[in-house]
Amino acid sequence: MFEWFKKRRATIVAPRITPRKDVEVTAEKVNLKDMSPDAVSLVGQVAYFELAVFESLSRAVSEAPDLESKEGLSTVAGEALEKHHGLVAILRSLKADPAEAMAPFASDIDRFETLTQGRDWYETLVGVYLTAGFLNEFFLALAVSLPPKHRKVVKELLESDRTADVLVAAIRAGQEADPTLASRLALWGRRLMGDTQLVARSALRLSDNASDNASRLEPVFTDLVGSHSKRMDALGLTA
Amino acid sequence: MFEWFKKRRATIVAPRITPRKDVEVTAEKVNLKDMSPDAVSLVGQVAYFELAVFESLSRAVSEAPDLESKEGLSTVAGEALEKHHGLVAILRSLKADPAEAMAPFASDIDRFETLTQGRDWYETLVGVYLTAGFLNEFFLALAVSLPPKHRKVVKELLESDRTADVLVAAIRAGQEADPTLASRLALWGRRLMGDTQLVARSALRLSDNASDNASRLEPVFTDLVGSHSKRMDALGLTA
Repeated sequence: MFEWFKKRRATIVAPRITPRKDVEVTAEKVNLKDMSPDAVSLVGQVAYFELAVFESLSRAVSEAPDLESKEGLSTVAGEALEKHHGLVAILRSLKADPAEAMAPFASDIDRFETLTQGRDWYETLVGVYLTAGFLNEFFLALAVSLPPKHRKVVKELLESDRTADVLVAAIRAGQEADPTLASRLALWGRRLMGDTQLVARSALRLSDNASDNASRLEPVFTDLVGSHSKRMDALGLTA
Repeated sequence: MFEWFKKRRATIVAPRITPRKDVEVTAEKVNLKDMSPDAVSLVGQVAYFELAVFESLSRAVSEAPDLESKEGLSTVAGEALEKHHGLVAILRSLKADPAEAMAPFASDIDRFETLTQGRDWYETLVGVYLTAGFLNEFFLALAVSLPPKHRKVVKELLESDRTADVLVAAIRAGQEADPTLASRLALWGRRLMGDTQLVARSALRLSDNASDNASRLEPVFTDLVGSHSKRMDALGLTA
């Protein structure tokens, strides 16, 4: 019974983060390639971001309300750490020192993590689910600029894994136990998007022509915001 | 030059935790088998302990003074998490629910982790290095009671990995930068042993005959305290 209940919870379907093919098409369609940073900068930024996600998730492991959630979140924290270590390995193969490659992004991402940490365990989980969902999809779109060999590995690392399922199940279980949680989390989910989009924009090399930037980036951000709405739906929240 | 320096630091030799063969001989010599808990209890306790070590190490990742240490510690945190997940897999193969198997040990180990957390980053690292070193060796000695298949996996999981090297290098680098650190860490290292031995004893099923218990356990604890002294030596501290 207990096992069956867990299995049932695990099958709550989280929306797939935009499938890889579509992302690639979008990125190529709008020619994002020349707006992408160089390989070491891109991989360095994503590597530091995944380390920050790992840190948020390991705090969530420590603060989990019960052992079953602790156990599930430890798997999710492990997945973020694997992403980080996989990206560090790419930096090494690019002959870059990982600490040096990540350093330029540390203070901005640390500030972002502080802003998106939330006031309690559920806000932390919603923060990770929505911001990492958004930024992983964005970084995947930029990965078109990487050499094919590294691009393949980055895609394998960033593509959806157990993380979304575990987070969605935990957040929905919280809302079932406390129906007042939903409105607070919906507000929180909307507030997160401003800072998240700023992090995404900071990764781009924009041209001096603001209206050219805007017209080229708009379709990408429209897609990303669409995926964000699907994630909010998966949480039963209004975007 | 930078790379070379890192390699050189990484070769600081941490004492091997007592080799597997000796531990086994000791455990068999003193017939610890009938003092060992049942398989699910033993693996449940060690699994929760490794999760607690992971939590301590991930706090240390967040509080690391620089990106290079953060990066090294994230590897070490990943190793603790792998131990935990490997042990959870054993619990599943023993048809036990991992959360239920770990639950009886959670409050004692949480209290132990609070006591051994230390007042700063270096005390945290020394705490993990000494207490996990001691308890992993102790749990390895108890693993003689497990079915051979699981015993083999537990040994592979608990045997020494990169953890000791990374921790020793970081703690020694701290002492080089601040020579006043050594006396404080030496005191801290000695204080940890009381609580650590209590955790070890709590895992055993002792008989009603106190002097019989004492005479059988003494050789085991003598070995464990000897390894502790070697770990203190590796840190340049007097046990």
